[in-house]
Amino acid sequence: MSTEFKSIGIFGKHSDPKIAQTLAALYQHLKPQYELMLDPSSAPLISDFSGKTHPIEDLAQHCDVLIAVGGDGTFLTAARAAAGCNTPLIGINLGRLGFLVDISPKEVITKLSAILQGQYRKEQRFLLHTKIIREQTIIHEETAVNEVVIHRWVTPSMIELKTSINGVYLNTQRSDGLIISTPTGSTAYALSAGGPIIHPSLNALLLVPLNPHTLSNRPIVVDGSSEIEINFVKTKEVNAQVTCDHIAIPGVLISDTILIKKDPKTITILHPEGHDFFHSLRHKLNWSSGYPS
Amino acid sequence: MSTEFKSIGIFGKHSDPKIAQTLAALYQHLKPQYELMLDPSSAPLISDFSGKTHPIEDLAQHCDVLIAVGGDGTFLTAARAAAGCNTPLIGINLGRLGFLVDISPKEVITKLSAILQGQYRKEQRFLLHTKIIREQTIIHEETAVNEVVIHRWVTPSMIELKTSINGVYLNTQRSDGLIISTPTGSTAYALSAGGPIIHPSLNALLLVPLNPHTLSNRPIVVDGSSEIEINFVKTKEVNAQVTCDHIAIPGVLISDTILIKKDPKTITILHPEGHDFFHSLRHKLNWSSGYPS
Amino acid sequence: MSTEFKSIGIFGKHSDPKIAQTLAALYQHLKPQYELMLDPSSAPLISDFSGKTHPIEDLAQHCDVLIAVGGDGTFLTAARAAAGCNTPLIGINLGRLGFLVDISPKEVITKLSAILQGQYRKEQRFLLHTKIIREQTIIHEETAVNEVVIHRWVTPSMIELKTSINGVYLNTQRSDGLIISTPTGSTAYALSAGGPIIHPSLNALLLVPLNPHTLSNRPIVVDGSSEIEINFVKTKEVNAQVTCDHIAIPGVLISDTILIKKDPKTITILHPEGHDFFHSLRHKLNWSSGYPS
Amino acid sequence: MSTEFKSIGIFGKHSDPKIAQTLAALYQHLKPQYELMLDPSSAPLISDFSGKTHPIEDLAQHCDVLIAVGGDGTFLTAARAAAGCNTPLIGINLGRLGFLVDISPKEVITKLSAILQGQYRKEQRFLLHTKIIREQTIIHEETAVNEVVIHRWVTPSMIELKTSINGVYLNTQRSDGLIISTPTGSTAYALSAGGPIIHPSLNALLLVPLNPHTLSNRPIVVDGSSEIEINFVKTKEVNAQVTCDHIAIPGVLISDTILIKKDPKTITILHPEGHDFFHSLRHKLNWSSGYPS
Repeated sequence: MSTEFKSIGIFGKHSDPKIAQTLAALYQHLKPQYELMLDPSSAPLISDFSGKTHPIEDLAQHCDVLIAVGGDGTFLTAARAAAGCNTPLIGINLGRLGFLVDISPKEVITKLSAILQGQYRKEQRFLLHTKIIREQTIIHEETAVNEVVIHRWVTPSMIELKTSINGVYLNTQRSDGLIISTPTGSTAYALSAGGPIIHPSLNALLLVPLNPHTLSNRPIVVDGSSEIEINFVKTKEVNAQVTCDHIAIPGVLISDTILIKKDPKTITILHPEGHDFFHSLRHKLNWSSGYPS
Repeated sequence: MSTEFKSIGIFGKHSDPKIAQTLAALYQHLKPQYELMLDPSSAPLISDFSGKTHPIEDLAQHCDVLIAVGGDGTFLTAARAAAGCNTPLIGINLGRLGFLVDISPKEVITKLSAILQGQYRKEQRFLLHTKIIREQTIIHEETAVNEVVIHRWVTPSMIELKTSINGVYLNTQRSDGLIISTPTGSTAYALSAGGPIIHPSLNALLLVPLNPHTLSNRPIVVDGSSEIEINFVKTKEVNAQVTCDHIAIPGVLISDTILIKKDPKTITILHPEGHDFFHSLRHKLNWSSGYPS
Repeated sequence: MSTEFKSIGIFGKHSDPKIAQTLAALYQHLKPQYELMLDPSSAPLISDFSGKTHPIEDLAQHCDVLIAVGGDGTFLTAARAAAGCNTPLIGINLGRLGFLVDISPKEVITKLSAILQGQYRKEQRFLLHTKIIREQTIIHEETAVNEVVIHRWVTPSMIELKTSINGVYLNTQRSDGLIISTPTGSTAYALSAGGPIIHPSLNALLLVPLNPHTLSNRPIVVDGSSEIEINFVKTKEVNAQVTCDHIAIPGVLISDTILIKKDPKTITILHPEGHDFFHSLRHKLNWSSGYPS
Repeated sequence: MSTEFKSIGIFGKHSDPKIAQTLAALYQHLKPQYELMLDPSSAPLISDFSGKTHPIEDLAQHCDVLIAVGGDGTFLTAARAAAGCNTPLIGINLGRLGFLVDISPKEVITKLSAILQGQYRKEQRFLLHTKIIREQTIIHEETAVNEVVIHRWVTPSMIELKTSINGVYLNTQRSDGLIISTPTGSTAYALSAGGPIIHPSLNALLLVPLNPHTLSNRPIVVDGSSEIEINFVKTKEVNAQVTCDHIAIPGVLISDTILIKKDPKTITILHPEGHDFFHSLRHKLNWSSGYPS
């Protein structure tokens, strides 16, 4: 048995009715061998839990590996919390396929045991760091695993965004908004908006407009180390919102400047051995499937 | 004055009626200071030309810099010929915008002088190397700057292609074909087929299906060092063709295997200072333009 | 001179600083020959106006022809107000191209004179009628010229919509929303969302999903007489909004049913003679333009 | 029992190894009650066949109903042959889903019996008629059920096509070609090229460019009664081909004019009762399916 992991943190999607059963099974299976700790919302769902709890913000710092149980959203929350400490992440779904939560409840005991014994495929993923600048001052900073979205908000009109990359003007476009995505996020919201699939190993950022008001737009892929600056063109009274992995940054004004670049922090994901990104594309997205031949 | 370039090769699109005037102007301007050499088809277009000629296959090896005068197709021919020797390339167009031939006839004297005096933006671009394998033997090898296209040929039916990347199965798809493009090629045929724009600095390959027979297909961007293997699924009697920058590889059979990966040779392009890829996108592709606002 | 039009209503985009000059020019030109009436917000912008005012809701009923001066949004407001009475509409823009406001300020005197003298191309356009049903009761009805949009609202999650056409189940999709567009609206928001262009003479409805959470979606065009029923799938606590030509229907709940079908009322547009829809596509949308050839 | 159908023609995809079994089963089932006739290539596949044979060009004229057994291609051949006489068509597939051959071998006995006894859903579909004009003379005419495609042929360059609709200039575009599709064809090749789905009941034509050399192109849907005229722009030495349902019209030159409009002949399809186009979209195209939710 590997001695790599002694303590395990578990973060569950406590709002999902299916979670209690999976958490209990996990707990029974792991407690003989590992020190287990939970987030305070998940702990009450395991009747005989007797370990420590830590809020998700701190949980990763107290354990050797962090297991997220739920959907991709649960994993994203755990991942943002784990970013910066070296604690690797494992994702377990609740029966519905996810790109990040790639172990199903049925196979959780065998696959998880194997990973914890050192049989895993380790993957580093980079994150995005967003700064909101108001009058030369950073008023908010946020981290995203999948994407940053700037979009119109509670306003019937399109917004107009001016984008520069590394200080060089890119374009100005009227649209519902703009997605700046990591390769990880290329199979999430960016895909719905018409973006390409980008292999997670690539050092690249993807910009995809949301319903652009021109026929001639097209997604663009730029170097992963680019700094992206976005300003609103204040032609009208509009409101906009900036979200990081679907979590809104509060109080952004259209006079603010948004700066996005790679976060110095990364996350580490442990996949079961044999994990295959292309297989996930075919099976989770029905990619390339269709009119049977 | 820079002493970097002493000899200059000139390769012209000799079939274009506008070429003679541009060639003559170039020749008059450059001959006092540089040793000039031409390809055999362009030489007769300059009445008082008295230098050496070399076929385009060799021209780059005899000069310090190679100027292609024509369209992107002319530049591609020169670039494939120059690949592997260190001779840098300069592109001059004949009045019609090109992505690679970025100096217009009007500005040729000033911009070219500046470049030859050392005021340039140097850019390295990678190429694709394609091997056709028949019974474990390489029967043909070819180099492409923009893209390799595998497409049905003189056949009414779609073809079915099975693609693997670094030995891992990607997908099988029925379509008119598949484009494997460099970032350089992402603004060429791949764009017509619905691909994203990829910044030329990126180490990435782009795969774009041609009219795929499924609703669920989408372009994919993978690491530039990937090896791509393509085999035909022999469901029907079909013919297919493999083209590199629109030049066909003769005699490919659907029982052949196609291997595509980054070529060890690269090309070097000299742009005028201030060259801006995003500006080219906006002005050459009308990118993001449209319904005026 | 034609005696078809004796009284003219004018509805201006009073918030636009450029409007006053165009309104004054129009007024000076038309008052010798026609009875003029304005909406109450536009009237004060003409210093010597001495005619009647009527709110836009009634204006069309008091005049023989209604002129909308502004952008497409101004025209849409006028058109919804004019729907059902037979008053034809003329659109004048303020310098920015519009699909519906097709006379520019420069040519307003000549083109408008010609139209008012009977030299016009008359076009009938159909509208959409939307009913919001709550517990078997219609709680709201609204008319749209361009499109009805059902979209998520102040909620980070996608919404799930179940659509039936003439009582036959079409599909269930997770997305940011769904556009149901007339041919008139096919060059507006539906185009931004990836829909095709539909000639305005066609009796057809267009359904375009907004950022659908599947790869396999595609717009669909159905008969213009179809009744479309949309229900929310209540998987999550989400909010949604229904907008008609970008005007929100207040207070829609995700337990409501939305019924959309052709409105029995139509509108009539008078274009200058020689009006050409394809010309508008090429010049207003830059349709088919691009990389110059 | 209905007396509507007394004689039945059967046209099989004789090149398919699965056909013999289905033909034999059909024959055994139908011969007690109906006069059966086959095309000369299918007849030898039924060992005890003793009826008449007629080439497919004539078969429809000798029977009350024509059954096509094979794929959509087989059905299209039968349909073009049946166009103009009133013989309705029934499509039977060989295990692979088709849009037009909608009865599977498993259900053939029950579903076919029901249809022949009068329990069917009858659908009229319109066809396209193509004329090739050379020096004011029609040199070729052809009929298509799905689509007419004008595309480059044995030529590395894109072609440039100038299109007019009812004599009004639409656009000029460089591309691999252009698809003109009926609503029936909107789920075939036009869909691969990015076109929308058009309900078969619509009186509309769909124009979809093939890999257009501009970013700003988009499919367009026009009235079904439109006449479409296409001319080649002779900028280069190119070759092109015109295909009707994937069958090439021989010898088209780029100096020829192509005229396409609705064919006066139609076809009639008999579907099993309960036939549902939207169900076919979901099940045959995986439309709207994807990332399971």
